[in-house]
Amino acid sequence: MSDFIVDPVILSLTHHAADWPLSRVFVYDDSRYGWGLLVPRRAGIVAMADLAPEDQGQLMQEIVRLTGAVRAMPGVERVNVGNLGNMVPQLHVHVVGRRVGDPAWPGPVWGHSDPVRHDPAALAAKLALVSRS
Amino acid sequence: MSDFIVDPVILSLTHHAADWPLSRVFVYDDSRYGWGLLVPRRAGIVAMADLAPEDQGQLMQEIVRLTGAVRAMPGVERVNVGNLGNMVPQLHVHVVGRRVGDPAWPGPVWGHSDPVRHDPAALAAKLALVSRS
Repeated sequence: MSDFIVDPVILSLTHHAADWPLSRVFVYDDSRYGWGLLVPRRAGIVAMADLAPEDQGQLMQEIVRLTGAVRAMPGVERVNVGNLGNMVPQLHVHVVGRRVGDPAWPGPVWGHSDPVRHDPAALAAKLALVSRS
Repeated sequence: MSDFIVDPVILSLTHHAADWPLSRVFVYDDSRYGWGLLVPRRAGIVAMADLAPEDQGQLMQEIVRLTGAVRAMPGVERVNVGNLGNMVPQLHVHVVGRRVGDPAWPGPVWGHSDPVRHDPAALAAKLALVSRS
């Protein structure tokens, strides 16, 4: 068993917001979207299906909890949830706030364009929404 | 309360494979991928977060179950799970088998290109994998 560490690519694109019972929770550093990320603190797991059943249930609860925080972020009309892992195999789940006419609309945000980083105040507001949720 | 019906766009792109406790289960009609779809039989729901808590847990179980079937489809190396709803608001969850070098790799399949429909034998084999899982 190896210890849990977060992939450095994820760390380079996000800011840490909270630790929930299963997941380390991040805000994705793209000011164009309200975008959170869950990384379950389990080493060596790639797919949701490979978590223990109790962790699968907890992950769904944390997806719902993060959805609540993302919905409170500016301009969010709808939420996309995705677990891809094509670029970074470590299990991580995106919860992405979308609005009609956003840069990637109606396509997926993944792979669409480089992030536009937050200014400190906008980032702090989103981190607070997650950490208070 | 309206009755549950499946959006006609979903019906036009899929074939019905099974009914599980929560979801109607489909095979997406694109021969290039092992691709299943879950449509929870609940009317008027757009997001996983808006399901009742017991339905959320059941949906995760069905994502795991469908992941098992998709992993048994030809050429599947990894699985992407996505709930977008940007084109079709009705809640539906994609479970998509991916392989390094597939047409959309490493990007998402959603919005990438028009489907290449199955021949009857390939479709029947995938439907059987889902209905037996």
